[in-house]
Amino acid sequence: MTENWNEIDRFAKDLIHHAGETIKNSFKDKLSIESKSNANDLVTNMDKEIEQYFVKEIRRYNPDHKILGEEGYGDQVTSHEGTVWIVDPIDGTMNFVHQQRNFAISIGIYHNGIGMLGYIYDVVLDELYHAHKGNGAYMNEEKLKPLKPVPVSEAIFSINATWITPHEKVPYQIFGPIVHDVRGTRSYGSAALELAYVAAGRLDGYLTMRLAPWDIAGGKILIEEVGGVVTNLQNQTHSLLGKDSLFAGNADVHNEIYQNYLQGKL
Amino acid sequence: MTENWNEIDRFAKDLIHHAGETIKNSFKDKLSIESKSNANDLVTNMDKEIEQYFVKEIRRYNPDHKILGEEGYGDQVTSHEGTVWIVDPIDGTMNFVHQQRNFAISIGIYHNGIGMLGYIYDVVLDELYHAHKGNGAYMNEEKLKPLKPVPVSEAIFSINATWITPHEKVPYQIFGPIVHDVRGTRSYGSAALELAYVAAGRLDGYLTMRLAPWDIAGGKILIEEVGGVVTNLQNQTHSLLGKDSLFAGNADVHNEIYQNYLQGKL
Repeated sequence: MTENWNEIDRFAKDLIHHAGETIKNSFKDKLSIESKSNANDLVTNMDKEIEQYFVKEIRRYNPDHKILGEEGYGDQVTSHEGTVWIVDPIDGTMNFVHQQRNFAISIGIYHNGIGMLGYIYDVVLDELYHAHKGNGAYMNEEKLKPLKPVPVSEAIFSINATWITPHEKVPYQIFGPIVHDVRGTRSYGSAALELAYVAAGRLDGYLTMRLAPWDIAGGKILIEEVGGVVTNLQNQTHSLLGKDSLFAGNADVHNEIYQNYLQGKL
Repeated sequence: MTENWNEIDRFAKDLIHHAGETIKNSFKDKLSIESKSNANDLVTNMDKEIEQYFVKEIRRYNPDHKILGEEGYGDQVTSHEGTVWIVDPIDGTMNFVHQQRNFAISIGIYHNGIGMLGYIYDVVLDELYHAHKGNGAYMNEEKLKPLKPVPVSEAIFSINATWITPHEKVPYQIFGPIVHDVRGTRSYGSAALELAYVAAGRLDGYLTMRLAPWDIAGGKILIEEVGGVVTNLQNQTHSLLGKDSLFAGNADVHNEIYQNYLQGKL
């Protein structure tokens, strides 16, 4: 089956903008709900409502498309055959609840395992990062430039303090030298936004321990479209079917960090 | 001498907005300069240009006011006597250069050591956080709410991965348990914005090792106006004349973290 990717692109952008409006309108409700219930309930409701909206509309648009979504309203996806939407209705849940900013809608659309369309929508700033394989990546109407080589000593990395804190299941000793050697580190609390920042050249790398396919799917397409690299910490391609670690970045920085800081140590 | 604080407030806001315009206009120049020179030069030039502008205008406004500025164009300030402007023309230099966002203008105006007017201006988002002692704190026209008590287990802290990384001059072992016990950590790379986020309730605490008076002066006034606390890691008031560590937060979280994680350990 041949897909009309331009038409799917327009459809996806409409969905995302509509969902963004719904989320923004919920801010008022949240303030009234917050005193009666706990904040985590609300975000679950919004996550569910937005994902249900996506699933309903995508199924109406094309019942042959499969949907892998964080909240489980989509399909049991066990292969990448055909056209698969990988959806995170609200990435950065904690930020959504605590900050009402710094969260995003993330969608990646894959065809037989190849990333065709990627979207990360920063709802509050109204910034839509989007890419169509082979046609470049954009923030709204502005084309994102190919990522330039940067020495590790001048690189800005996103890495959360949690991964440097001693913990039996985290290779925290490996991350310390990276934190020490780069120019600076940040952490924004939304994998999707962090990947969008890598695509936009605001971060040169992003390292994290455990992400699900819906955290990565949209950002991977964006980053690859500007010449960046997205793997796990072992430098392997993600299956996008299960959880894994993540290492995204500028191609040169990714290579140098993998060779000198990660290879053989995990 | 009696000061007209409402008039000074209007004057300061005019200065800040004008400086913000200058910085935003420099983004185009930066793109053309970046290929000829190194990025760090430019930011130094903008820092200097903005601080010189502040110093010139403040001296014209009232030559009795003293100015403590990051770039050294103000006065040698060794006491808090009289009216002192503490100015950071661009806080978050690295973000300014690498991201062209997530930086701020920060100004605190003190009278005989008492914080009277505080400003943090997120230039790119056009968000001015401002406080006038006794009259509350605002983000643009929106009044910021008094900070609510939050258990440590539900607190979001800003702490950079650098402070968890083993280093002889950093008490990194002390920060690990805090990172472990709070709900989540973030790091934005601009002390001024991190303090503004604490004032706005988006962060419940901010911990860092070494800041200068101009990093803290504006944010301290904002945070105190919403009932928060700003000290160093030993729970002491800042002199605002030299460098020190910083621990800002919600009053309850600040007290609990100090008692259970910091006291007697530094």
